[in-house]
Amino acid sequence: MSATRRHSFITSVGDLLASWNLPHATGRVYGLLLVTEEPASLDAIAAELGLSKGAVSTAVRQLDSWGLARVIPQPGSRRLLIEATAGIESLLAASHARARTLIAALRDGEDLVGPGPAQERLRDVIGLFSGYVDVGDQMLSTSRRQRREPGARDPRP
Amino acid sequence: MSATRRHSFITSVGDLLASWNLPHATGRVYGLLLVTEEPASLDAIAAELGLSKGAVSTAVRQLDSWGLARVIPQPGSRRLLIEATAGIESLLAASHARARTLIAALRDGEDLVGPGPAQERLRDVIGLFSGYVDVGDQMLSTSRRQRREPGARDPRP
Repeated sequence: MSATRRHSFITSVGDLLASWNLPHATGRVYGLLLVTEEPASLDAIAAELGLSKGAVSTAVRQLDSWGLARVIPQPGSRRLLIEATAGIESLLAASHARARTLIAALRDGEDLVGPGPAQERLRDVIGLFSGYVDVGDQMLSTSRRQRREPGARDPRP
Repeated sequence: MSATRRHSFITSVGDLLASWNLPHATGRVYGLLLVTEEPASLDAIAAELGLSKGAVSTAVRQLDSWGLARVIPQPGSRRLLIEATAGIESLLAASHARARTLIAALRDGEDLVGPGPAQERLRDVIGLFSGYVDVGDQMLSTSRRQRREPGARDPRP
């Protein structure tokens, strides 16, 4: 029962992160790490998710580069342990940066149609996309201000 | 020169809509329609994008079902003309609905880890995802209130 819920949680995280352009396997590894209280080995992750160790390594490198996981070397051993971090802001920020580049490309195309209904329609669509990314950005900066990183020192006396 | 800019605009719309889970070809058809002043035929779309007529038909059906395009039958002919609409709200709303389902699945998993740092980390991540979808929703309802549909009658006297 709990194993089923754990499995379905992991799949949901995979689905959700896929919508921010992360490969599904990478999202599932993140899901597994989120519901694993102790840092996990590559072997344990591979066994639970039915992935090859190589696939898990690739996923862990991606998570590490997005700030979603931390790799902890074990002194005197080649074994690595992996731990999730709560830093999904960098993933969302990257997704926004990507969207902004695309929206800049759309704005460049605003004069591809002459004045008239087609141009109004185009501006309408670009404005909505652009507003959508703007509020996402605001939300992200609010969350960054409010959140104290685990391990960050409290600035208050 | 203008053909190159038109082409790159179309590719950018394809890339952007792919991030809301639309197939790339469908996004490109929408991009083409946005920069085409008159309604376009399936043949003209297929020729410009280098797609089969079947692929364009599929894309148009998807755009139609999302409210992103309107199909205009030609009286006395089997020919159809396609026109873009500015209705990307339905696409974003569907994307939110999908994200909400996933977030509900994550909330279900909050007790998969016992009280402690792992549970705090999990709540932190779920809270951020969830807040992110909330602001997107607010933005969408604001935009829906502000925007008058093309062809909607002006309610003011």
